[in-house]
Amino acid sequence: MSLLERIDACHRYDLRKFKPFLVAGERLGYVRHDLASEFGKFPSVFTNAAEALQVKEHLARFDSRTAAINTVAQELAARGIVKGWRNELFPVATKFGAAPLFDLERALVPFLGVKAYGVHMNGYVRDGDRILLWVGKRADDRPIEPGKLDHLVAGGLPSHISPFDNLMKEAAEEAAIPKELARRANPAGAIAYRMELNGHMRDDTLFVYDLELPADFTPHNHDGEIASFELMPLDAVERILAETEAFKFNVGLVVIDFMIRMGHLTPERADYCDLALGLAGPY
Amino acid sequence: MSLLERIDACHRYDLRKFKPFLVAGERLGYVRHDLASEFGKFPSVFTNAAEALQVKEHLARFDSRTAAINTVAQELAARGIVKGWRNELFPVATKFGAAPLFDLERALVPFLGVKAYGVHMNGYVRDGDRILLWVGKRADDRPIEPGKLDHLVAGGLPSHISPFDNLMKEAAEEAAIPKELARRANPAGAIAYRMELNGHMRDDTLFVYDLELPADFTPHNHDGEIASFELMPLDAVERILAETEAFKFNVGLVVIDFMIRMGHLTPERADYCDLALGLAGPY
Repeated sequence: MSLLERIDACHRYDLRKFKPFLVAGERLGYVRHDLASEFGKFPSVFTNAAEALQVKEHLARFDSRTAAINTVAQELAARGIVKGWRNELFPVATKFGAAPLFDLERALVPFLGVKAYGVHMNGYVRDGDRILLWVGKRADDRPIEPGKLDHLVAGGLPSHISPFDNLMKEAAEEAAIPKELARRANPAGAIAYRMELNGHMRDDTLFVYDLELPADFTPHNHDGEIASFELMPLDAVERILAETEAFKFNVGLVVIDFMIRMGHLTPERADYCDLALGLAGPY
Repeated sequence: MSLLERIDACHRYDLRKFKPFLVAGERLGYVRHDLASEFGKFPSVFTNAAEALQVKEHLARFDSRTAAINTVAQELAARGIVKGWRNELFPVATKFGAAPLFDLERALVPFLGVKAYGVHMNGYVRDGDRILLWVGKRADDRPIEPGKLDHLVAGGLPSHISPFDNLMKEAAEEAAIPKELARRANPAGAIAYRMELNGHMRDDTLFVYDLELPADFTPHNHDGEIASFELMPLDAVERILAETEAFKFNVGLVVIDFMIRMGHLTPERADYCDLALGLAGPY
């Protein structure tokens, strides 16, 4: 087991299990063959051909496309095919910064394998030359990765909110970080990965922020996602990450990026380039 | 013109102009078709087939392979085909950290299009919330990119020296940075690019370091590579980089990475993901 194994695990998928999901001639995602058949049962919205699942071309505008796809989504939820409805809309676009082609209920994001975005924040404390990272333990009742180690602040990026504004919202809800402190968070880059997860294709890009916290700051979770927080030296974080699967899979990638940028991992490692250059994914 | 154009320019090549260069069955580089013919004139060392230029399999060990290839290199220099002999050996391996398959005179690196490595250091000064970057202007008599803007410290990575030790050497030679100060340089990641340059394939990975300098530090160049240094606010650096070709091509990439990590460029830019994720190259 190694740090590199954490990165490799986030780049594994078998395209034969999926077909492209197209809107207006552009590939927006990957959908499992059996699920493409389910979408194909709504031929006024989807065309399920051998080579791709496509949204009908007559749904040429954002509003009508969003409404039609949402109707199918609700029907699939009613039939028990889609589970875990979140009542959160995610924008779907060819790339970040492009105009969204439609908004999609979050529970459907993995089903269509479209690009999704999130914000992750490394909350850290300096103690002389040492760096300590705040690590949260996810509550045991979470639908996603219960009990795993997580960031101080992390969340998906819904429609109509900027990465920074979303980070501020999550910082208050997830860790009770005062606004004056949270707004000092520094955007430090992005990481990307594409992988099979729970039978779906996951194609994520995470905006990475760092926030240096005062030694006397203690986080408190407000939304029930995190059961407890611990301040860990980077040596301990590195060891847990390399030797166990205790960290939520994508948190591990952001932490590797953090350890690289902070100079905790150095070019004297034989795997340094693989670690430093393996975090851009298939973007 | 834009920052993204700087990244795109470092990822442009036309594989039809080249054939793979193989050693022991592994592709180590790309060589132009006409140059492959020149290497092919030494059939005791190279086999020039239609699909690849290969080092003969009987040259199975590092020492014999290095000696045989070097003999051909000297012959090509004597014939005026290889120019700019440097008397510097670069290790050639399938990837960083792997055992080198041979050492190659630096002038031959572009001819065979093998992976090369370098160290680049962002030397910066904090002034309140502002960050200023030390920028060097290359001497007008340099063979590579004369007159272009450059880093405070940068150089290729020769054989038998670690990235950090090489950085310390270059920091003394190129900018007269005292050793006690230079050793505080923080390794902050790597960037990679593959591009056609002067008719050759260039396949580089750069180890990136940051060094925060005191406000009263002034660099001096000792080796004639840099004519003058200037301390520039990041706003000015960004504008010059986006609007002109004044920066040496690869320095621009390292500076974009620096501006991202320092939070000078933010996720509110529509091209943020392209900038942040476009620096890992084809690694």
